[in-house]
Amino acid sequence: MAKLYFKYGAMNCGKTTILLQTAHNYEERGMKIIVVKPSKDLKAGDNIQSRLGAERKVDYLVKPDESILEIAKDNLDVDCIFVDEVQFLEPKQIDELLKITIIYDIPVICYGLRTDFKTNGFPASTRLLEIAHKIEEIKTMCRCGAKAIFNARFVNGKLTNEGDQVAIDGFDNVTYESMCPKCYYEALNGKVKKLTK
Amino acid sequence: MAKLYFKYGAMNCGKTTILLQTAHNYEERGMKIIVVKPSKDLKAGDNIQSRLGAERKVDYLVKPDESILEIAKDNLDVDCIFVDEVQFLEPKQIDELLKITIIYDIPVICYGLRTDFKTNGFPASTRLLEIAHKIEEIKTMCRCGAKAIFNARFVNGKLTNEGDQVAIDGFDNVTYESMCPKCYYEALNGKVKKLTK
Amino acid sequence: MAKLYFKYGAMNCGKTTILLQTAHNYEERGMKIIVVKPSKDLKAGDNIQSRLGAERKVDYLVKPDESILEIAKDNLDVDCIFVDEVQFLEPKQIDELLKITIIYDIPVICYGLRTDFKTNGFPASTRLLEIAHKIEEIKTMCRCGAKAIFNARFVNGKLTNEGDQVAIDGFDNVTYESMCPKCYYEALNGKVKKLTK
Amino acid sequence: MAKLYFKYGAMNCGKTTILLQTAHNYEERGMKIIVVKPSKDLKAGDNIQSRLGAERKVDYLVKPDESILEIAKDNLDVDCIFVDEVQFLEPKQIDELLKITIIYDIPVICYGLRTDFKTNGFPASTRLLEIAHKIEEIKTMCRCGAKAIFNARFVNGKLTNEGDQVAIDGFDNVTYESMCPKCYYEALNGKVKKLTK
Repeated sequence: MAKLYFKYGAMNCGKTTILLQTAHNYEERGMKIIVVKPSKDLKAGDNIQSRLGAERKVDYLVKPDESILEIAKDNLDVDCIFVDEVQFLEPKQIDELLKITIIYDIPVICYGLRTDFKTNGFPASTRLLEIAHKIEEIKTMCRCGAKAIFNARFVNGKLTNEGDQVAIDGFDNVTYESMCPKCYYEALNGKVKKLTK
Repeated sequence: MAKLYFKYGAMNCGKTTILLQTAHNYEERGMKIIVVKPSKDLKAGDNIQSRLGAERKVDYLVKPDESILEIAKDNLDVDCIFVDEVQFLEPKQIDELLKITIIYDIPVICYGLRTDFKTNGFPASTRLLEIAHKIEEIKTMCRCGAKAIFNARFVNGKLTNEGDQVAIDGFDNVTYESMCPKCYYEALNGKVKKLTK
Repeated sequence: MAKLYFKYGAMNCGKTTILLQTAHNYEERGMKIIVVKPSKDLKAGDNIQSRLGAERKVDYLVKPDESILEIAKDNLDVDCIFVDEVQFLEPKQIDELLKITIIYDIPVICYGLRTDFKTNGFPASTRLLEIAHKIEEIKTMCRCGAKAIFNARFVNGKLTNEGDQVAIDGFDNVTYESMCPKCYYEALNGKVKKLTK
Repeated sequence: MAKLYFKYGAMNCGKTTILLQTAHNYEERGMKIIVVKPSKDLKAGDNIQSRLGAERKVDYLVKPDESILEIAKDNLDVDCIFVDEVQFLEPKQIDELLKITIIYDIPVICYGLRTDFKTNGFPASTRLLEIAHKIEEIKTMCRCGAKAIFNARFVNGKLTNEGDQVAIDGFDNVTYESMCPKCYYEALNGKVKKLTK
């Protein structure tokens, strides 16, 4: 029976690399896949890019009011559907992803963040955490060596906890750093240690 | 560094058994622990009971407006805090649990459900899924043999998807059955297969 | 497709409790299971007992020269086969367990230790680590709070690293303590910290 | 406390890609790492290459009679040691890796295969499975869609179960295909399904 997977991890943990590698594994065995991405993600246009250098064209840019179930219906011959930057979908689209696994028996593997720079859940990610068959963490480390969980936002290099939920990395002088909860709260309270990078 | 754990699983997967076993492991090594439970959980009063027969008195029944951080502050000598039926806490109390791990360096292990009988998240569980250091599933199986994820509610033996989010198992003729998504949706659509139990 | 599982963990981590709980979950859903144990395990006769108090009669005591494949063949109506103290089987019996999952499509869940008191693998466990579909750790902690991995043997309360691989806990003044690698090697080198229990 | 990790997976599951991504994550945070590889691995000389295109020069080619403990001693300023193709080390070198985590408090992350083309364990991998702090599977799928576990060897495109344990992929007309146990045994028994690739 097909399953809905959520592989989550903080910013820059390597989610896209693992998506590209897993997609490669499928295709190397002669299987067919599609890769979709929310249209809300402006980074790299209709491409997805790994920081290791690999990249791939996205098959569908999914709009907020679009039915993913319909996209699946048009691709019933695929062996797997990959979703990158899943946090930018709508929650009702996550329920559709679950239905794809049940009705069409096609596995769906989603990659994304759990929470925004204020530690609030992205609605689609929260829904995935609630109903995914399988939740798996892709780990990365904080500047202190501990596991990073939160995503701190910097505007012009200055830490902030104000602004809209969505601000794409690299646009409008926004950057992110993934941090463990301890370093994140210390940084917010002004006790910012010197960045190692 | 202490961590906040969420060990989730569908109804009757054995969460309380594993809580009691882990608590036993700590105490067997001479370590000190406390077990807390939301006061909202009416089952077994201030006891927690495993279906295998083991039981234990709860150290604190936590009220919705109570500070768990204060409870921890009164127990800084403990090696671990266990939370049973964590889904009945308030979301802000989950943020307190994270702070306990950061400020007091005490690990907190929570056991509970992800979603209610309508597949909606319990607010405290959703918050835990968003910010826990570590999320781990305690598995059980559906009547069909697949992994159970959802919790179907039966009133007088009849499946329902109406009613309040909280209705304790065994009270007011309410019972639950943990199901895989496929069986759950089929059952709701009237295609209920004969129960094996 | 049925799978061969190895749930390993150091002494006293709660393996038998989890076996009993999982077996209970199967039976509660009207499914049929059998529990087997190597005859080499002298503890509790043909019973298995959890330190939490629960217990159960074993269906088969498997001798070193016995075929588990034949036992399975006589029980093709079961939904799952449980193996306790799997480290005391023979390696060729582990290959039979894998065949049971392939030929008869019956899942097999094994519980046991990875290594003996000298950190050498038990041959059956080693074979399981090599070929099991799924390996899962049941964790417990060392006296120092870190995760325990090794099993230190004490004779008359004195740590030893000499003797036969198999010496059952509680017989001939033998006891065990599960330890992290650091504490284990320090203890062997005479730097034994005061036991907390 | 530093840990010894074993991330295992069948041929072509993407182990090297994940090594390169994790190494990248460390260095991006200003941390220092070294990558070592057994000299027995002839593939790509002193490089490691991911099938996605990324590559990296290895810092040390470790000979069978060389002490990895000494290599670590010369690099006490590193934050992590990565080992690729770990199955080609000697078992006693695995015990050294554990000691590196205990004595020098440096984490060691190993990537490799569990078993050879006959399903026999590689001695170093078997030792790792016995004593690693943490064992994690990197999954890939069989031609049939199930999880691949075994590594079938083909010589001139013909499946074989004879020959030396070590024969490097791509040399002497040797190729490998990762398979689930069911397909592997069926293929060996002459019931080879048409390859999809």
